[in-house]
Amino acid sequence: MKIQLALDRLTIDEAIRIGEEVKDYVDWIEVGTSLIKEFGVESIQKIKSVFPDKTIVADIKTIDNAKYEMELYFRAGADLATVMGVAPLVTIETSLETAAKWQKEIMIDLLNTSKDIQKRLLAYDAIFCSHVSKDEQEEQGRLANNNEKTSYLFQQNKKIAVAGGITLESLKNMKELNPFVVIVGSAITKANNRPAAAQAFQKLIFGGEIE
Amino acid sequence: MKIQLALDRLTIDEAIRIGEEVKDYVDWIEVGTSLIKEFGVESIQKIKSVFPDKTIVADIKTIDNAKYEMELYFRAGADLATVMGVAPLVTIETSLETAAKWQKEIMIDLLNTSKDIQKRLLAYDAIFCSHVSKDEQEEQGRLANNNEKTSYLFQQNKKIAVAGGITLESLKNMKELNPFVVIVGSAITKANNRPAAAQAFQKLIFGGEIE
Repeated sequence: MKIQLALDRLTIDEAIRIGEEVKDYVDWIEVGTSLIKEFGVESIQKIKSVFPDKTIVADIKTIDNAKYEMELYFRAGADLATVMGVAPLVTIETSLETAAKWQKEIMIDLLNTSKDIQKRLLAYDAIFCSHVSKDEQEEQGRLANNNEKTSYLFQQNKKIAVAGGITLESLKNMKELNPFVVIVGSAITKANNRPAAAQAFQKLIFGGEIE
Repeated sequence: MKIQLALDRLTIDEAIRIGEEVKDYVDWIEVGTSLIKEFGVESIQKIKSVFPDKTIVADIKTIDNAKYEMELYFRAGADLATVMGVAPLVTIETSLETAAKWQKEIMIDLLNTSKDIQKRLLAYDAIFCSHVSKDEQEEQGRLANNNEKTSYLFQQNKKIAVAGGITLESLKNMKELNPFVVIVGSAITKANNRPAAAQAFQKLIFGGEIE
């Protein structure tokens, strides 16, 4: 299980500062959609340059123009980029082909996909992100990843990432599902003591003592 | 009928130069997804500052985090921004609410939406974009907007935009459907003589002599 730190709704400098505070306790660093849309691929370049040994995830939610977009992110230093599961299949396939050429990886974001679409997508070699979106959480109060769709995904023997409002408490319920990646944003970035918050996730997942 | 010039796969400076060449023949200027994702909201700010009297469309394809994203684009100078029809409805509704507060407008991109979803979306007060994506054109050779779905849309008495590989030839077939907005990209931006190409679209739509 890996911890992916999601950096969203921040300036690039704030994102780097937070990354430095918690880098010892997280595995992957996500340059959030909001950073890329506000600051462009410079956000990816700068964060990769500060954390060259971390897997950098560009959460750019591609839905068209896959070759052009993926090459932008990979060239900027992303090791992994996201494509929407609700995109036309040709866009998902083009993303996967481009990633293969660059020896990079793709995460398919399953936001708002039907079970039928999920069944088709699961044939691909990718990481699949079970995603409760910010708007579903903040505007509708939906809880993270606690539904029937999620349990279905975990039965498919695929690499599953879970995202959306994940807290220490909600991770306790998900831990036994053994996701490949746990994506954590504000539970770390908005904590009063960020290193302690990140370390608590690490301890919950891997065991061991909190210093 | 309005002509929306789509500026994509360019630097900001190239986009501005092309905009200046053809501004007399187009109504709206679209800052394309690829520009915003590569250069951030600076692309919107700079293009709005050069064309303050044009309606500036930020084609940013929001699919989550709608209030935060829409406020970024509107603050940067966008008059209109796009949200994906395949997004959760709460994201589309939050986009519309945010636009209303800012006295701006929303275009709902119908890419990959089912007819059932379209029926629900058409209840909203927005512009609806019938969209053949770049990947569907370039990777699958799909032609622009010539299918049964499109004719259905035009029967709904809504503001319809058409996008995706539109040429003078394909517009001839669509003209009688009387779309509210015709989105033209490479047929103008990649023409040898861009002002002449843009003027030819204007003449086809509005009549009159080409100088």
